[in-house]
Amino acid sequence: MTQPTTETLVPKEGLFVLHLFYRFDSGATPAGISASPKELVGGVEALLAEAREAERSQAVSLSLIGRADLGFLLLCPDLYRLHRWEKRLAVLLGRHGWSKVFSFFSMTERSDYTVSEAEHADQLSSQEGLVPGSPEFEEKMKAFRERVRYYTEVRLYPTLPDWRFFAFYPMNKKRETGANWYALPFRERKELMQGHALIGRRYAGRVIQYVTGSTGLDDWEWGVTLFAQDPYEVKAIVAEMRFDPVSARYGEFGPFFTGLQSPVAEIFGHFA
Amino acid sequence: MTQPTTETLVPKEGLFVLHLFYRFDSGATPAGISASPKELVGGVEALLAEAREAERSQAVSLSLIGRADLGFLLLCPDLYRLHRWEKRLAVLLGRHGWSKVFSFFSMTERSDYTVSEAEHADQLSSQEGLVPGSPEFEEKMKAFRERVRYYTEVRLYPTLPDWRFFAFYPMNKKRETGANWYALPFRERKELMQGHALIGRRYAGRVIQYVTGSTGLDDWEWGVTLFAQDPYEVKAIVAEMRFDPVSARYGEFGPFFTGLQSPVAEIFGHFA
Amino acid sequence: MTQPTTETLVPKEGLFVLHLFYRFDSGATPAGISASPKELVGGVEALLAEAREAERSQAVSLSLIGRADLGFLLLCPDLYRLHRWEKRLAVLLGRHGWSKVFSFFSMTERSDYTVSEAEHADQLSSQEGLVPGSPEFEEKMKAFRERVRYYTEVRLYPTLPDWRFFAFYPMNKKRETGANWYALPFRERKELMQGHALIGRRYAGRVIQYVTGSTGLDDWEWGVTLFAQDPYEVKAIVAEMRFDPVSARYGEFGPFFTGLQSPVAEIFGHFA
Amino acid sequence: MTQPTTETLVPKEGLFVLHLFYRFDSGATPAGISASPKELVGGVEALLAEAREAERSQAVSLSLIGRADLGFLLLCPDLYRLHRWEKRLAVLLGRHGWSKVFSFFSMTERSDYTVSEAEHADQLSSQEGLVPGSPEFEEKMKAFRERVRYYTEVRLYPTLPDWRFFAFYPMNKKRETGANWYALPFRERKELMQGHALIGRRYAGRVIQYVTGSTGLDDWEWGVTLFAQDPYEVKAIVAEMRFDPVSARYGEFGPFFTGLQSPVAEIFGHFA
Amino acid sequence: MTQPTTETLVPKEGLFVLHLFYRFDSGATPAGISASPKELVGGVEALLAEAREAERSQAVSLSLIGRADLGFLLLCPDLYRLHRWEKRLAVLLGRHGWSKVFSFFSMTERSDYTVSEAEHADQLSSQEGLVPGSPEFEEKMKAFRERVRYYTEVRLYPTLPDWRFFAFYPMNKKRETGANWYALPFRERKELMQGHALIGRRYAGRVIQYVTGSTGLDDWEWGVTLFAQDPYEVKAIVAEMRFDPVSARYGEFGPFFTGLQSPVAEIFGHFA
Repeated sequence: MTQPTTETLVPKEGLFVLHLFYRFDSGATPAGISASPKELVGGVEALLAEAREAERSQAVSLSLIGRADLGFLLLCPDLYRLHRWEKRLAVLLGRHGWSKVFSFFSMTERSDYTVSEAEHADQLSSQEGLVPGSPEFEEKMKAFRERVRYYTEVRLYPTLPDWRFFAFYPMNKKRETGANWYALPFRERKELMQGHALIGRRYAGRVIQYVTGSTGLDDWEWGVTLFAQDPYEVKAIVAEMRFDPVSARYGEFGPFFTGLQSPVAEIFGHFA
Repeated sequence: MTQPTTETLVPKEGLFVLHLFYRFDSGATPAGISASPKELVGGVEALLAEAREAERSQAVSLSLIGRADLGFLLLCPDLYRLHRWEKRLAVLLGRHGWSKVFSFFSMTERSDYTVSEAEHADQLSSQEGLVPGSPEFEEKMKAFRERVRYYTEVRLYPTLPDWRFFAFYPMNKKRETGANWYALPFRERKELMQGHALIGRRYAGRVIQYVTGSTGLDDWEWGVTLFAQDPYEVKAIVAEMRFDPVSARYGEFGPFFTGLQSPVAEIFGHFA
Repeated sequence: MTQPTTETLVPKEGLFVLHLFYRFDSGATPAGISASPKELVGGVEALLAEAREAERSQAVSLSLIGRADLGFLLLCPDLYRLHRWEKRLAVLLGRHGWSKVFSFFSMTERSDYTVSEAEHADQLSSQEGLVPGSPEFEEKMKAFRERVRYYTEVRLYPTLPDWRFFAFYPMNKKRETGANWYALPFRERKELMQGHALIGRRYAGRVIQYVTGSTGLDDWEWGVTLFAQDPYEVKAIVAEMRFDPVSARYGEFGPFFTGLQSPVAEIFGHFA
Repeated sequence: MTQPTTETLVPKEGLFVLHLFYRFDSGATPAGISASPKELVGGVEALLAEAREAERSQAVSLSLIGRADLGFLLLCPDLYRLHRWEKRLAVLLGRHGWSKVFSFFSMTERSDYTVSEAEHADQLSSQEGLVPGSPEFEEKMKAFRERVRYYTEVRLYPTLPDWRFFAFYPMNKKRETGANWYALPFRERKELMQGHALIGRRYAGRVIQYVTGSTGLDDWEWGVTLFAQDPYEVKAIVAEMRFDPVSARYGEFGPFFTGLQSPVAEIFGHFA
Repeated sequence: MTQPTTETLVPKEGLFVLHLFYRFDSGATPAGISASPKELVGGVEALLAEAREAERSQAVSLSLIGRADLGFLLLCPDLYRLHRWEKRLAVLLGRHGWSKVFSFFSMTERSDYTVSEAEHADQLSSQEGLVPGSPEFEEKMKAFRERVRYYTEVRLYPTLPDWRFFAFYPMNKKRETGANWYALPFRERKELMQGHALIGRRYAGRVIQYVTGSTGLDDWEWGVTLFAQDPYEVKAIVAEMRFDPVSARYGEFGPFFTGLQSPVAEIFGHFA
């Protein structure tokens, strides 16, 4: 009825993504006992090293601020493998007084609202006056297709940056009377999303944003993961986007987690 | 005043359904002590074997992702028997540091919105031009009745697939001013539900969905249980359905649980 | 400033009602130690026996499903006595690893929306053509008064049935813009409630329902307690009522608890 | 930077009010060990005696029903002193397995909606035909001023009754589109509140109500504390008020706590 | 991939702000064992002394009322340093039975709605009849610029007062249909905010208010920190502001925390 652990579960496209946030639960460890024994630090380091070496996989360790102390962001194309990492972390951390605060299961996904080939062809002929079939037209279409392929590849199989500040929040689009995203026609949603994307582009080089899909997989419809060198920029972009109609009218936000990318030894070093 | 345990409680129709989700509670077990001793694994295996052999009963074991670690889906026509399984699991798991995260009590049920015999007869005469009482007409009606009987039987007494990916969420229909499902006329609800069902049919072979009723039995009105080979398909169908008017306007969703069908030994093996 | 425990507190009318739901908290009891020692079972049995013998008092013990393991429903005309039973249960159960999941404090109450004497007299003359003052009219009025007295007595001092399936949920009437029960005129509420009551009457013999009042006493305005032989009927009546305008527009429902009436020894037997 | 503990903090007017509700946390105390040792009972008794002797201070001890087991209502004009009592209770109770369920910090306050002197003068001349400046007019104005002074004094520095039944709930006034108390003109709010007060007056002698202000001090805007000899009356007044437009349209209610005024020894006696 | 701990993370402008609130968790410390041993008090005192000496940094210690027992307010221009203080407090307190109740991560920020230079120039010419370029005009503009620079400096790098009463609450601006702050034009928001600020100015000398930004950093958009000598004034200003359209229509408030500024030894002294 079930699968041996040697099996793999690779999805039609994209990667599985797991956000795991932990808190050091003081009550579980008596005074004078280390919350970060070598066994624990070594075990977590070995696991992350393995995850970083696995094909198309990535692993980020985080020293979280305020509501949590420790976080991991794991990407993997095989759900069985990712699942084993998750449970190994649960066992390792659980045994030393760390308890899970929040987890989020999602997948990388392509955008539903990118410019289509037909739309681009239309633009080339109507706005740039190019004749379909002409060498210039075809060359531009080829470049367009490559650009789309590249951005889709980057969305489905991203390479996370080593920027030091991290923020995460899950979100939904509202389905309320008077503000129902899911009742809007596709064209209207597309226009709204393209305006929304413009704000993100203005922060290029200062904030990198990953939107992963979780409809049917977790309580919220998307997870938003942000990296920046300066938290000021994260605060600025999220505040600015809140005035954009997509967020102002349709955004519904879950809990926010923030922290600093740090090596495992340094994170646990706080609790030595 | 009460019943001896040899009594049975079999409902007018359908099966009782219990979703039970557990988390390994690290605080309860000191470091170095196994969270999955042989006694526990053997006890759970024996219980599931018993449940699988019981008449019209089924039992699925799950290795859950993120918010929980272990899940069971139990179906049984006798509530006393199902109740004893539930409490045996509670005792077995509770004694070894596993705590319940969520449970859901529901029953399999027939659909309220299937095509009626009269509607089908109407279609045969008006759309296919068959004369009521003619041999062809009667034959088609007989086939229709058999089809209805079959689908009702399958809804009331389903056979769960061994597909590896599992997802569950409870749901309500909204009763808000401006979006009140329960204030819609029957005809309108029926049309909406038939459109909704079409999406499900397009995912045949990729996603299997079970909707069980829990109005009056648990906090939500229905439980939705999905099985798939690829989580990508679960994400796709739930996302697509969210644009369908039934979900877009009237759907209200509870917590999502996902996981992998796995043998008990393998699930506990993660915590050895 | 306060009262000696020999004092009694009997309300102007009706009984005090306490729903108490417990869960066996596995973490509190180490493996191998019984969660249901003789001392505990005997203590709870003695308390319930005492409660059942007390004047106008009743006590039901429940083996709950899913979210809780054990429940009591206690009715008593004296709040001091009921309060002592509650605390004795708290001490007995708390010491053996059982923790309270939910409690609900309410009182039996008469209906606000029964047909008045004047209304009935009106009906007799206008619909049945009886002349006020005539022997037939007066006899029918006398019968009406007795019926009202009987139903009021039954609401204020009910005798709980030994039916095996139990369900409970607390509820409010909405006070939202566009759906404000408390802003409706009395006549409209009365008509709505009489239509609502008709559904209940159709389930006579299959479902028995008790509505007790808790405005000012607990978080919700009413508690609804249902007994049935078959959970199918509880599911059916609550689902059907949801389409009734009173529930569809004005009902707001809290957590649902379900279970089986069982003797104390049998309930604890699950945890032996 | 801070104050020595001999300092006092007396507000511009009124008293500080603290509602403290505790539950006996069974898990913290092993079977066979008393939850109410002499040291604890004596310590709490000494503290309450001290509080009752302190100037303008009051202290009520409560045996709570259902969701909590023990409650205190403390009034004191000096926040430092009240704060020390609170923490002494926290230490005493915490060490013996009692945990805080809820607390509420508020202040006694004068009503914003009482009849003003000008309004009363107006009434005297227009409704009673008295001439401003006439001896009768002046005498009535003097009596009015004294009445206002008395009622304000009673609101700011109340003397709690020894009535045995206690109920408490926090509340807000709604700020929703379509029902925004804070967007109503003063005159409208005043009229609504005066109608609301009439209901309270009809329960004089059966229910005593204290409304204390907590805007800026705790999560809710007011705390409502009720005392009665019969819970029936508390249920009746709160249910009746719910139909009053102030509550029906603008009231938003928090958790309800109820209990019995009891001496400390009796409350802890339940847990001996 | 990550940074050594000697690195600093100073934002484009402003300070990082951390509110940390703790409760003494009685269950974690057995009776007779001090909840405030010298090691703990000394450790916290040393940390706060270090924080107070650090450049542009500030640290406030609080004895909280009701829902929490201990609080810290930390301001620091370097996130790495602030983060180390936070984790040192977590370790110190966690080991002695103190658990975190709430934390809030925000940054000081300039106001978005101050009078612009162009607006002020406009006012000088239109309302005061000054000619742009004239010496008087230029002098007034220079004074204006200095005033703006000063107030911005004070908002970005505030000096906290030693006033004894402290209150904190997080808040959002609503994004509901019919009351959507983020859908208002800038001019309207600016006018609303300037009216709102006038109330604050009338409390000058009695209440000092700090609004720090947390959009993208924590669950709420702003944190409001108030200091006063008398809680009466905090209650008065928050109650008055609730009638201001900005709060009445658009304000959404989180949990309120209040307390007294106290030296560390005095706070822990309550638990000796």
